[in-house]
Amino acid sequence: MNEKIEGFSKLTKLQKIQLLLSKLDLSDAQTKIKEDLLKSFWHVDPATQKVIDEFTENALSNFHLPFGIIPNALINQKNYFVPMVIEESSVVAASARSFNFWYERGGIKAKILGRTKLGQVHFKFFGDKFLLFEQFESLKPSWLEELKPIISNMEKRGGGLKSLSLLDKTELEADYFQLWAEFETCDAMGANFINTVLEFLGKKITAHFAQSKVIMCILSNYTPDSRVLTEVSCTLKELNDPSFQMSGKDFAVKILEAIKISKVDKYRATTHNKGIMNGIDAVVIATGNDFRAVEACVHTYASRDGVYRGLSDATIDWNHQSIDDSIFTFKLEIPMALGTVGGLTALHPLAKLSLDILGRPSSDELMMIVASVGLAQNFAALRSLVTSGIQKGHMKMHLMNILNHYEASEDEVRLCKEYFANEVISFNAVREFLTQLRNKHVEHQFISTESRS
Amino acid sequence: MNEKIEGFSKLTKLQKIQLLLSKLDLSDAQTKIKEDLLKSFWHVDPATQKVIDEFTENALSNFHLPFGIIPNALINQKNYFVPMVIEESSVVAASARSFNFWYERGGIKAKILGRTKLGQVHFKFFGDKFLLFEQFESLKPSWLEELKPIISNMEKRGGGLKSLSLLDKTELEADYFQLWAEFETCDAMGANFINTVLEFLGKKITAHFAQSKVIMCILSNYTPDSRVLTEVSCTLKELNDPSFQMSGKDFAVKILEAIKISKVDKYRATTHNKGIMNGIDAVVIATGNDFRAVEACVHTYASRDGVYRGLSDATIDWNHQSIDDSIFTFKLEIPMALGTVGGLTALHPLAKLSLDILGRPSSDELMMIVASVGLAQNFAALRSLVTSGIQKGHMKMHLMNILNHYEASEDEVRLCKEYFANEVISFNAVREFLTQLRNKHVEHQFISTESRS
Repeated sequence: MNEKIEGFSKLTKLQKIQLLLSKLDLSDAQTKIKEDLLKSFWHVDPATQKVIDEFTENALSNFHLPFGIIPNALINQKNYFVPMVIEESSVVAASARSFNFWYERGGIKAKILGRTKLGQVHFKFFGDKFLLFEQFESLKPSWLEELKPIISNMEKRGGGLKSLSLLDKTELEADYFQLWAEFETCDAMGANFINTVLEFLGKKITAHFAQSKVIMCILSNYTPDSRVLTEVSCTLKELNDPSFQMSGKDFAVKILEAIKISKVDKYRATTHNKGIMNGIDAVVIATGNDFRAVEACVHTYASRDGVYRGLSDATIDWNHQSIDDSIFTFKLEIPMALGTVGGLTALHPLAKLSLDILGRPSSDELMMIVASVGLAQNFAALRSLVTSGIQKGHMKMHLMNILNHYEASEDEVRLCKEYFANEVISFNAVREFLTQLRNKHVEHQFISTESRS
Repeated sequence: MNEKIEGFSKLTKLQKIQLLLSKLDLSDAQTKIKEDLLKSFWHVDPATQKVIDEFTENALSNFHLPFGIIPNALINQKNYFVPMVIEESSVVAASARSFNFWYERGGIKAKILGRTKLGQVHFKFFGDKFLLFEQFESLKPSWLEELKPIISNMEKRGGGLKSLSLLDKTELEADYFQLWAEFETCDAMGANFINTVLEFLGKKITAHFAQSKVIMCILSNYTPDSRVLTEVSCTLKELNDPSFQMSGKDFAVKILEAIKISKVDKYRATTHNKGIMNGIDAVVIATGNDFRAVEACVHTYASRDGVYRGLSDATIDWNHQSIDDSIFTFKLEIPMALGTVGGLTALHPLAKLSLDILGRPSSDELMMIVASVGLAQNFAALRSLVTSGIQKGHMKMHLMNILNHYEASEDEVRLCKEYFANEVISFNAVREFLTQLRNKHVEHQFISTESRS
């Protein structure tokens, strides 16, 4: 199948599927099965399917990710159902368990620490840089004037270009300068607005400075000043939970130790933050936002002081008169840029429904919800890790996945659960065990039949 | 809707949907519409739906992400169709364009630089650390012996626990030690296997060292020694492309400048790497792998020397006799841990199909494919950025999304394309323009009718 395929993108969806499958060395029957499989994932309504097809190019079908829900997400005294789109077992369950735990202890508090979005025009300038700065300041008012038609809609909504400055970056690289632009994009994530403004400014640089060379005009996904803080707290007494199999104080101390490790060891920090993102990405996807943007922003922030560190923090404010009344606080401060208008938020029917389920939040409110789910998810992971270990809950879920795949009967499910209570669960191990069970069953039936004969 | 919901997880799927919608302050008609919407995203086959439901908890429906395809992904002289699951306009088109470009120039070369997976038992030890090390070495053989039943299946496949050492981390934190374990997990991503081994080792620490306190046992998602290198190269002459509107040499130099900026400015580096991950995550999801794990690993790697930097590299090997024959090389070295068995790879019908489409690759081969898509995606983004800018292609796609949402007629599409060729495209702007068009149309019809009367 090494020859080049010509004109693929011009084919219809069905032609693409058929061409693709024709290259896979399949029997006619197998080809038919795979074509039917792809079609079975199409949406029943062709108009809806067309909308989804247009999100990308060469779309053949839809990849289904489960759309789950957390109840009782009490954030700033408002009780949300939070939609999550995630394929990993036990993430929704863990978040739900965590939210349930904190519901009883006052819920999660969240606040916005900033909303500034950023963009840059990266360019080289080969002349006298003092003249560049002088001329930039004198040209800037007319550029802002010319930008007005582009930004008027955003200004009507209370946003716009908040500041524009010229930065000398020649210490980093010869002749390298930046236009640094700060934006308020209201309820939009703002990528298209920002990039349009920047490309306009790039053209101005080229037009006005003969000795310049614009390299690129592009928003930054790193927005440390679009940031949210979310936290929970309670007394050590309130952390006395029989499932921890240790006192509330010992549990809190262990959480602090786990957090400390995530601050000093990047091998742990990576996984620590990965767990936070399990929760965050699930809501980001459900609401039609771009999880790669949030991931890149969050992880860059994790390395901001030169060491890649865990993002959450925990403290105990000791009450030495009454240890049990000491206050445990667990928090997460995290940057992100989200939209509740624009992008796919109104285009994907289920993203739109997610925002309905959340009560049509502003982008600020959505940031607080998303960060709170990150906090809840991190608390759930640490809670499992420092008590029973992560595998117990996780493998129970995964075992059910595998058993469903093999359409196990109720009896088989029960026997497998018993057997794998103390065994390593893997796809192969479960298949082998099931095969044994089923062979025995056949044998047993055979013997029964014989004995009856 | 602030009261706590009890027993949500125990409800049936339909009961969950109905309870959720009952809390949303909707009319009966609206409730019915939303219930039907969620149901319309269910898979037609209940058995398939049950499999997907079990991936997560409280599943109500499936979030559809488009399943697209890149043709002509020539990697190590093998021509692949690569499945991509992504909701962002122009990512598949950009990758396809990039692969097409490099197909004509020898394709992409990729190689595996390592496959080591990692795990840690984090613990405190409050005694004489020299005794700890001594006793660890004497106990280790018996622990490895006891681990045999757990690792025998993995060993049969050529993998297992490759090394186990005790690390003194007391310089980072008082009394802090690690068991550091290196694994070969063959074609599995290995999380469950690794965590099971680590939890066993954690229990051993607790049992043998009275003065110890195990904090947690968990794999690391940071796997810098499970790494792949992927690259393309050609002469500057071969970079002469009319669409660049500059010479091949000028284009190559601009790419080098863009790469250099991504190495020295973290605001740019974040977005640079985000673009790489647009390609990588799309294939990771399509093949049933965990994109949060890959994201966390890649971004930690980007900050490994204390500054968060762009991950790709470009060089020109100058030929001063013939500048046009100088060699441009563009490459990406990136860590990740992927599986082609286990997890969802065989459970999700479309993940399974994705692996079929890729020719049932080993995990090594999949790593090379995924990294190559990252490289292609990054090249496509830089190519747009340093030539026409990113907005042109992107907005053309997004305009079509919006027009489809409003079920625009062919005439309306044509008029919108003309109008928005030089206007900022936003959801609101397009809606307003369409409304105007449609009002005019009604007016026109009205006038026509009048004049006819």
